Amino acid sequence: MERENMRELKGHAVEYADGDTNFEGYVVVPDKVAANRACVVLTHDWSGLTAPTKGLAARYAALGYVCFALDVYGKGVRGDPIGDNSHLMNPLIEDRSLLQRRLLAGYNAARQFSSVDAARMAVVGYCFGGTCALDLARAKPPHLKAAVSFHGGLKSPDIEEDKPISASILLLHGWNDPMAPPEHVLGIAEELTAAEADWQLHVYGHAQHAFTFEDAKFPERGIVYDRKADERSWAAMRHHLDSSLGG
Amino acid sequence: MERENMRELKGHAVEYADGDTNFEGYVVVPDKVAANRACVVLTHDWSGLTAPTKGLAARYAALGYVCFALDVYGKGVRGDPIGDNSHLMNPLIEDRSLLQRRLLAGYNAARQFSSVDAARMAVVGYCFGGTCALDLARAKPPHLKAAVSFHGGLKSPDIEEDKPISASILLLHGWNDPMAPPEHVLGIAEELTAAEADWQLHVYGHAQHAFTFEDAKFPERGIVYDRKADERSWAAMRHHLDSSLGG
Repeated sequence: MERENMRELKGHAVEYADGDTNFEGYVVVPDKVAANRACVVLTHDWSGLTAPTKGLAARYAALGYVCFALDVYGKGVRGDPIGDNSHLMNPLIEDRSLLQRRLLAGYNAARQFSSVDAARMAVVGYCFGGTCALDLARAKPPHLKAAVSFHGGLKSPDIEEDKPISASILLLHGWNDPMAPPEHVLGIAEELTAAEADWQLHVYGHAQHAFTFEDAKFPERGIVYDRKADERSWAAMRHHLDSSLGG
Repeated sequence: MERENMRELKGHAVEYADGDTNFEGYVVVPDKVAANRACVVLTHDWSGLTAPTKGLAARYAALGYVCFALDVYGKGVRGDPIGDNSHLMNPLIEDRSLLQRRLLAGYNAARQFSSVDAARMAVVGYCFGGTCALDLARAKPPHLKAAVSFHGGLKSPDIEEDKPISASILLLHGWNDPMAPPEHVLGIAEELTAAEADWQLHVYGHAQHAFTFEDAKFPERGIVYDRKADERSWAAMRHHLDSSLGG
């Protein structure tokens, strides 16, 4: 796997609020920022904004983007990176309107962050974060150019969509992902087609859930790291962000 | 579309036989060949080895590969590039064993061609040629490293497969291709998984059949050029051949 051969960039916490609820995001800025940079909003997996997401944020910043990892759980609400976090995730999966509202709060905070070019925004997420990336695209916020889901949930929500999704969408999917079976793939293809979105789906044969997470070693649950799919999806994401966000 | 900005490389006819049947392929060699080169075997669409396939062969040679366009119809048997060529194609679709035999004859001729590195072989095809590229991979010939199908038929044949497919397979598919509906996509995913093939599927939303052919302007038949899908699939193919065939 291409892990950028450089020291990991340091980030820092950023607080923001939505009404009475406080959130704590995490932002990493590339070295040597001269002009404002395009921004990758990173949506965390079901464990919340924990160390793995912070590590990913540093990798995105190393690509030259300001990476703003948003928080949909709330300040101080964090799960276990390797445990069961459904008690944190499920309330938001069951209330997609609340999830969208929290995504938009984070997105708006990212756009207001210094050194961000608020006209060149993308969202990227992994697992539950992939679902979040798609839900942010479905919310159609201004200037969102691209959305990328790595082994995300693909089940379409029951949210009414009244105008085209303008973000260019890239779904990176392992065919043997038990969390995203073929019927969900067919469903989201239909949904995104009807929504007039520019969309692509890259399917990796044999790959299972969490195929980019090197610590994913739970074959009994279909959660397994896959080096080929990791490398291919990373390259596809880079190409997609490059072409969507420009230089 | 990235059309290589150079004069088109010239090719020439190459005759070969399978038993009593004579075939006429077409080969284009890159400029400045020093060592032997990796070879892209190109499988023609339903019109046979006509001008569009020869133009594609020149584009593959411009990438640095020896491009050997094989012939599954027979010497002098050519169709109409824009007409109905089902009378030529259907006998081979109905006899996949005969088709495989002809594909192997061409493949072997390509491997014996001077300036080809016979250990670094790939096959690429468009439309019916995409089906052919997959059928060649299914025949498991020696040293076939990669197979790429552009808007090819995806229906799996009823051919018994007794060992893993070793070629790395890339399927480039328009979601709205009426010749390759979702049930064929699901079927080939199942087939290639069972065959233990390294496979990827890139789906382009809204794209229809023949999305890389600039002259495809038949929306009433679902045959339409699509610039985005053309560019994306060309880039994906390049990456796939680079990584499968090495330098």
